[in-house]
Amino acid sequence: MASMASVVLVTGGARSGKSRIAEARVEAQPAPWGYVATAEAGDGEMAERIRHHRARRGAGWQTVEASLDLVAGLDAAVAAGARACLVDCLTLWLSNLLHAEADVDAAADGLCRWLAEAPVPVVLVTNEVGAGIVPLNALARAFRDEAGRLNQRVAAAADEVILAVAGLPLTLKAPAG
Amino acid sequence: MASMASVVLVTGGARSGKSRIAEARVEAQPAPWGYVATAEAGDGEMAERIRHHRARRGAGWQTVEASLDLVAGLDAAVAAGARACLVDCLTLWLSNLLHAEADVDAAADGLCRWLAEAPVPVVLVTNEVGAGIVPLNALARAFRDEAGRLNQRVAAAADEVILAVAGLPLTLKAPAG
Amino acid sequence: MASMASVVLVTGGARSGKSRIAEARVEAQPAPWGYVATAEAGDGEMAERIRHHRARRGAGWQTVEASLDLVAGLDAAVAAGARACLVDCLTLWLSNLLHAEADVDAAADGLCRWLAEAPVPVVLVTNEVGAGIVPLNALARAFRDEAGRLNQRVAAAADEVILAVAGLPLTLKAPAG
Repeated sequence: MASMASVVLVTGGARSGKSRIAEARVEAQPAPWGYVATAEAGDGEMAERIRHHRARRGAGWQTVEASLDLVAGLDAAVAAGARACLVDCLTLWLSNLLHAEADVDAAADGLCRWLAEAPVPVVLVTNEVGAGIVPLNALARAFRDEAGRLNQRVAAAADEVILAVAGLPLTLKAPAG
Repeated sequence: MASMASVVLVTGGARSGKSRIAEARVEAQPAPWGYVATAEAGDGEMAERIRHHRARRGAGWQTVEASLDLVAGLDAAVAAGARACLVDCLTLWLSNLLHAEADVDAAADGLCRWLAEAPVPVVLVTNEVGAGIVPLNALARAFRDEAGRLNQRVAAAADEVILAVAGLPLTLKAPAG
Repeated sequence: MASMASVVLVTGGARSGKSRIAEARVEAQPAPWGYVATAEAGDGEMAERIRHHRARRGAGWQTVEASLDLVAGLDAAVAAGARACLVDCLTLWLSNLLHAEADVDAAADGLCRWLAEAPVPVVLVTNEVGAGIVPLNALARAFRDEAGRLNQRVAAAADEVILAVAGLPLTLKAPAG
């Protein structure tokens, strides 16, 4: 589908520099850029992270909040004129879906269908959560299984996949030449 | 030892797609294939995982259970005619050995000696468990140390080592040209 | 700054072989070598690890303890004649700084300034701690955030960055040709 826009997935552990790498990829496109935030500013720690992220991003960014309906968020960003979009992040989106007892498979299907026909370049951020010791808690084990599955699905749908480690990008899947 | 069969280690976090990558590598060899399972179908969660894995694998696979004596399991698979073997997975094998208070070093030595003279190609799956926060629990810390040591030993014995991230393979050690 | 000595950062999970890779890099330089240890041999588990590491290192190594003032430790190693230094490890140093309620940003600034004008080659070891499930404990979350930030800062200051997995080195940042 050479006529469709590129889809990039950036994965990595906590504070691996993945959001910064993803932002730089979006900012390499012409502005304005849509920031599709899956975070809900509910608790203090998350609100602080959102402020930190927002302060780092410069002009040219428009924020759309999409804690559950990511496709609607992407559509809204494009309708508002975004010429490239950043989704930050899929792991939090998954957490929101599970909390809302939504159908994760259907939501992932919908996202992947949208990405296959993305009207503008999209960069998605996600987290590596499965490389630690097996959690004692069954819910935590279930969450990391779901997160791993979602990462695999979106990675399969992406043109390019990057692993962030210590702020440095490592290419896991290169765009077709 | 050019006359010996190739040994491949596939490591990765939970739900990183490592088993699928490993299965594809084995299925690239002529059938039949031996599936050497280290899992014990004791609890419900594990039984469910085994069913899931078994359903995904197609015809051509023969399962051998080897929760403690992995070398005996590999020998049994070869004796039954397997022309390539998959071991899934070393981390669970380690867990079984520790639970049985077996000699882990001796077991690892035995496995590495077998691999050095493997009569058929073997692909082994293992887990990255040491990239999370340091566990509070001393047993969990000891387990992840043992798991890391085992991974290093088998990686040193392997001809090829692959890291799976988001379903994608990253070569850590390439077979000698 | 081509006249300054090379700075290498080796990161990886627990028991990923990062210390061994780092030691080999230092031992490729002319002896004597300075081992700048950030560990405090307080509890039994850590004392055992230090003994294990010390036994593995051969002649040619001189140990300097630097649990808080890493720059002073590096200066002391150089003053004692070290022609290359190993710092093992940054994650423990961070833990010591936080425990002492020291100013982490100022300490990281000081280290990075020293590294920019390093008089001898330096190899620093650090840990990947952010690729597991999100810790329930707020202090653990804060620690892994700080550890990730420190890794990013030192990686940016380094000429070369290596990720250790299963004892194998993966280049994240290559020295400028």
